[in-house]
Amino acid sequence: MTDQTASPVPSSLTPEPAHPNPQGVRRVAVLTSGGDAPGMNAAIRAVVRTAASQGIEVVGVRRGFSGLHRGELQLLGPRDVANTIQRGGTILLTARSHTWRTPEGRTRGAQHLRDWNVDGLIVIGGDGSFHGAHYLQQEHGIPVIGVPGTIDNDLYGTDHTIGYFTAVETALDAVDKLRDTGASHERIFVIEVMGRHAGHIALDVAVAGGAEEVFIPEDAKDVSCVLDVVRQSVAKGKTGSIIIVAEGYPGGAQGVADAIQAGTGMETRVSILGHIQRGGSPVSSDRVLASRLGEAAVYALMEGRSDVMVGRQNHGITFIPLNDTWEKRKDVNRDLYRCAKTLSV
Amino acid sequence: MTDQTASPVPSSLTPEPAHPNPQGVRRVAVLTSGGDAPGMNAAIRAVVRTAASQGIEVVGVRRGFSGLHRGELQLLGPRDVANTIQRGGTILLTARSHTWRTPEGRTRGAQHLRDWNVDGLIVIGGDGSFHGAHYLQQEHGIPVIGVPGTIDNDLYGTDHTIGYFTAVETALDAVDKLRDTGASHERIFVIEVMGRHAGHIALDVAVAGGAEEVFIPEDAKDVSCVLDVVRQSVAKGKTGSIIIVAEGYPGGAQGVADAIQAGTGMETRVSILGHIQRGGSPVSSDRVLASRLGEAAVYALMEGRSDVMVGRQNHGITFIPLNDTWEKRKDVNRDLYRCAKTLSV
Amino acid sequence: MTDQTASPVPSSLTPEPAHPNPQGVRRVAVLTSGGDAPGMNAAIRAVVRTAASQGIEVVGVRRGFSGLHRGELQLLGPRDVANTIQRGGTILLTARSHTWRTPEGRTRGAQHLRDWNVDGLIVIGGDGSFHGAHYLQQEHGIPVIGVPGTIDNDLYGTDHTIGYFTAVETALDAVDKLRDTGASHERIFVIEVMGRHAGHIALDVAVAGGAEEVFIPEDAKDVSCVLDVVRQSVAKGKTGSIIIVAEGYPGGAQGVADAIQAGTGMETRVSILGHIQRGGSPVSSDRVLASRLGEAAVYALMEGRSDVMVGRQNHGITFIPLNDTWEKRKDVNRDLYRCAKTLSV
Amino acid sequence: MTDQTASPVPSSLTPEPAHPNPQGVRRVAVLTSGGDAPGMNAAIRAVVRTAASQGIEVVGVRRGFSGLHRGELQLLGPRDVANTIQRGGTILLTARSHTWRTPEGRTRGAQHLRDWNVDGLIVIGGDGSFHGAHYLQQEHGIPVIGVPGTIDNDLYGTDHTIGYFTAVETALDAVDKLRDTGASHERIFVIEVMGRHAGHIALDVAVAGGAEEVFIPEDAKDVSCVLDVVRQSVAKGKTGSIIIVAEGYPGGAQGVADAIQAGTGMETRVSILGHIQRGGSPVSSDRVLASRLGEAAVYALMEGRSDVMVGRQNHGITFIPLNDTWEKRKDVNRDLYRCAKTLSV
Repeated sequence: MTDQTASPVPSSLTPEPAHPNPQGVRRVAVLTSGGDAPGMNAAIRAVVRTAASQGIEVVGVRRGFSGLHRGELQLLGPRDVANTIQRGGTILLTARSHTWRTPEGRTRGAQHLRDWNVDGLIVIGGDGSFHGAHYLQQEHGIPVIGVPGTIDNDLYGTDHTIGYFTAVETALDAVDKLRDTGASHERIFVIEVMGRHAGHIALDVAVAGGAEEVFIPEDAKDVSCVLDVVRQSVAKGKTGSIIIVAEGYPGGAQGVADAIQAGTGMETRVSILGHIQRGGSPVSSDRVLASRLGEAAVYALMEGRSDVMVGRQNHGITFIPLNDTWEKRKDVNRDLYRCAKTLSV
Repeated sequence: MTDQTASPVPSSLTPEPAHPNPQGVRRVAVLTSGGDAPGMNAAIRAVVRTAASQGIEVVGVRRGFSGLHRGELQLLGPRDVANTIQRGGTILLTARSHTWRTPEGRTRGAQHLRDWNVDGLIVIGGDGSFHGAHYLQQEHGIPVIGVPGTIDNDLYGTDHTIGYFTAVETALDAVDKLRDTGASHERIFVIEVMGRHAGHIALDVAVAGGAEEVFIPEDAKDVSCVLDVVRQSVAKGKTGSIIIVAEGYPGGAQGVADAIQAGTGMETRVSILGHIQRGGSPVSSDRVLASRLGEAAVYALMEGRSDVMVGRQNHGITFIPLNDTWEKRKDVNRDLYRCAKTLSV
Repeated sequence: MTDQTASPVPSSLTPEPAHPNPQGVRRVAVLTSGGDAPGMNAAIRAVVRTAASQGIEVVGVRRGFSGLHRGELQLLGPRDVANTIQRGGTILLTARSHTWRTPEGRTRGAQHLRDWNVDGLIVIGGDGSFHGAHYLQQEHGIPVIGVPGTIDNDLYGTDHTIGYFTAVETALDAVDKLRDTGASHERIFVIEVMGRHAGHIALDVAVAGGAEEVFIPEDAKDVSCVLDVVRQSVAKGKTGSIIIVAEGYPGGAQGVADAIQAGTGMETRVSILGHIQRGGSPVSSDRVLASRLGEAAVYALMEGRSDVMVGRQNHGITFIPLNDTWEKRKDVNRDLYRCAKTLSV
Repeated sequence: MTDQTASPVPSSLTPEPAHPNPQGVRRVAVLTSGGDAPGMNAAIRAVVRTAASQGIEVVGVRRGFSGLHRGELQLLGPRDVANTIQRGGTILLTARSHTWRTPEGRTRGAQHLRDWNVDGLIVIGGDGSFHGAHYLQQEHGIPVIGVPGTIDNDLYGTDHTIGYFTAVETALDAVDKLRDTGASHERIFVIEVMGRHAGHIALDVAVAGGAEEVFIPEDAKDVSCVLDVVRQSVAKGKTGSIIIVAEGYPGGAQGVADAIQAGTGMETRVSILGHIQRGGSPVSSDRVLASRLGEAAVYALMEGRSDVMVGRQNHGITFIPLNDTWEKRKDVNRDLYRCAKTLSV
């Protein structure tokens, strides 16, 4: 994995007017880290092709910071990312790195980047991965740009994260299926969705899935309030109820289900959707977001930016200091939360 | 729910040459019972429309035998089943009936059928439901026809049961998603699929999902044989492994996962797919099977048959004594089982 | 269809603090008009349930303005919209109305609304439907609120229209399938997507689908520029190319394909995706948007607003004068257009 | 592409008891030819892994007979087919070969096979491809086995062909979407599906899609009979009708639509589903069929068979003389055809 031969980039493939490049960036590295998310491949592709359009080479790092530590680097050209835009997972793999937690580990990784003449590193992942990137900047002066790749959408500074839209769609598909069987049996389904400590996925799924109630970490309401909801549903003649619970809500779906069984004696099933929410072909919104952010990350390095995450707010690209992504918290959409309640009538 | 008014069936809607009807069947009832299965609505639709084409009325019973006990009967016409062929669940709902287990309960149900002038009952469900139907025939002489509706495909006498194809597709979709994330993280996923005490779903999903190993109730091999499989996969350079476990295999997916963790120390995740396998829009094979069997059930009653299940073997309709469906066991496809092993190289 | 009996709305179902209602709105009507769009049912549901939460009744009008002209009105309660959030199409049907183009026709419709004591009308559709609503306000003083429901996303004042996200997903799914077969055969596919006179769908599909080139009405570039793209793709070793053409681009997909065949002699296929883009179960983003806008429309009428469309810009609700929706034009996302070019390397 | 280095097959990877191999087959070739079909990759994978389990090497031929003519051969090992079971298209690509129609062209291809020490060739495709394979056997004595890979399911001797199930599902998905929009607008959709000169796809789609009428090449009924069907639908209060037309029916969907417009004046739309039916991730039934047949093809060569197609009838593997596949015709399922009519009431 030490092939440093330059893959020639024909000048005829630079259709774009040259983007400003005061630092003379000529080679960038990219890695994916943390939990994987659908759209990561689309982001890698966007990095590679944007760089190619600017005559810049890309080095792919396998297995996240773990692979960076071990020097698993390899040139990536446009043909290497052909037919990947629709693929789930990440072609660069990902890993949790224990060695990266030590200065020694990070020093080795930084050395590999220097050996490969890398001018900057793009890290696609969540805030844990951004910590890892931040160290490279702080301890070794290597320019780093973060690209938000996580299904949880819990990164401050960007409206959405790559993988979020697909995870919501996957969870919603499961809810639609459970609704069928819940209605037939007139039973209650309590469905747990991912999101780590945030309720973004839960909220979108609750509204889109027509749930009767939703429990998110951002609202500490007592689980017992689900009892009124369930009784009201029965009184209104509903056959089957759907309750959505974010994994970060204390007690999870099991806690809510137990409360329902204890408080009403009604037949209740728990469904923990689990890791299917991490996989699958990315939906269009994730592919488009990944394409915009991957492109923006390359331009950011060329412009001399560092220690920032490229995000998308409203429709524009933003640059958020990496530490803000974990020090600041992005609230759930409170209007949507209120809407969920209104429409569960 | 006591509307017994005849919904007129215009003679112009009998395009089919009249099917032999020596008993002069004029009205049949239909219910869905047990676990629901995608395609049940398509079967109900087929019953209603076939009957209409023969000038026969249909009475729908809500909530399975529980509703039959309570007299929840209502006429069903062709317009009542419009736009239902693609819907999951069952418009007649389903339920577990405790009252049906008593002769008194069954007597009440039989009386409702007689009050409604029902000449025969079609029961769409699994062998538990067929028991319920069998009683009606034995104790009250009411002609009954069973239609195999269960995702487990564990009914003797029919190659497939309604709902099976969709359940396999749903499970496979989950496996494809987990494969993405497993490959990215180089971890092992042990996935539990439904099937009650049978391995049909597990086997189809294992082959179609490219699994490294599959555990089914019909093969008592020791869970420890998965250790060799896992080690071989790693040796072959595979990133990520998929192991399929039928819910009826002793210990389930958790047992297999524990064995892997204990025996290899490798990162292993368990995914219990659960009730999503019961819902969703039925795939084409289930809609077609449901249409053939619903039609065949009406013709069977007209022909004077009773106490049989209509099944499809190879491409022809079969009539299997109801008691055979639970007394005899349908083996898994042994050729497919062997094939699964061969292709996991 | 003249049942004007009030369906009682129990006070216990008004969980929301009462929204300001200075006009004392007590009954609103809702209709869907124009081309149908996935999510229209979710919007109807949101209207009905928001109104119910505020103790307001809803009258559903069937078949758009055509039905309004004929007086096809009926009360709609929360149970009428149960299990509709995931359904494509519209339960209220839709139609093109010729009678609505005449003042006499509109006068009859207005009279029906007054006969039913309707305080305001919510129209879910595109700008053609908003014209129809505008007349009611201008000529008869009936408060009207527009809700943007069209797959084309060509309405000024809202970032997205209900149905847009699903149409993009449907078109993208087709592109993914054509990519498989194009790559196998090393042929070029020119795919035409909907959008009326706009390029929104085409642009999102082109980026998400990894297309080599996209033709939109908003850019009058000559079709011959596709020749360079195709030759470059071949030179780069790509097996198969995807070109996206918006239906509003002069000559459509056929024109582009003819140019390729004539200019390069390469095997080219045309695929006109057609009306499948109008149907299907709405994706989560359409269900959420429909829920927000349906809710907002009811509140708007309560607040005394009229002759406006409720839209969503960034994350907030906007109120756009109806005539602006057809007099002003919303441009495509120019950043995304540029990004599409960059990533086609 | 002339790497003939043997990729070692460790003896520990022969878990299967050795299959009888009287001819001492040691190396087989495989190619895909003709229209591509979802599941071809699963079949290639099955060939490679079955061969590996028996200590036999596999040579992949790119671009069908065209590539065989040019000598585009390369060894294929188990790792080369990793993660391909769910992929549409074919990793070996496919092509129409004009050179293969000449004895000289075929002689060159045969020579390449001998240069590579190939003991037999597996051809995955339709009857056109089987013609090509047949020549190799007849003119050069090279053992050939055909594997039925075509979405049309028009090969005699096998119940289904690889790709058929997925094509039906894709077409059905489009029908479901068109049904939504047809019902909303109360218009008639005439949908054309693939199938070349056969009506298999059309028939399954018509039953599963709840169509009012279906036109297949195997039944020369006059197009005017659709007029009665349409009028009946309207009389029965149906909103929207679906008519399925096989591409091989004279006049296609356009002809049927013209007849409806002319005979009833009702709003009718034509939808030609086209090449999306050739792509997409294969559904489980195609992956399982492909796995069984790919495995059977390798065993067939080992057993010394030649000039036959491996098929699956009922649940067993069959061996059909190649010329039978094009000389004999497989009828549509007449019971299903009749059932389609009955259920359109």
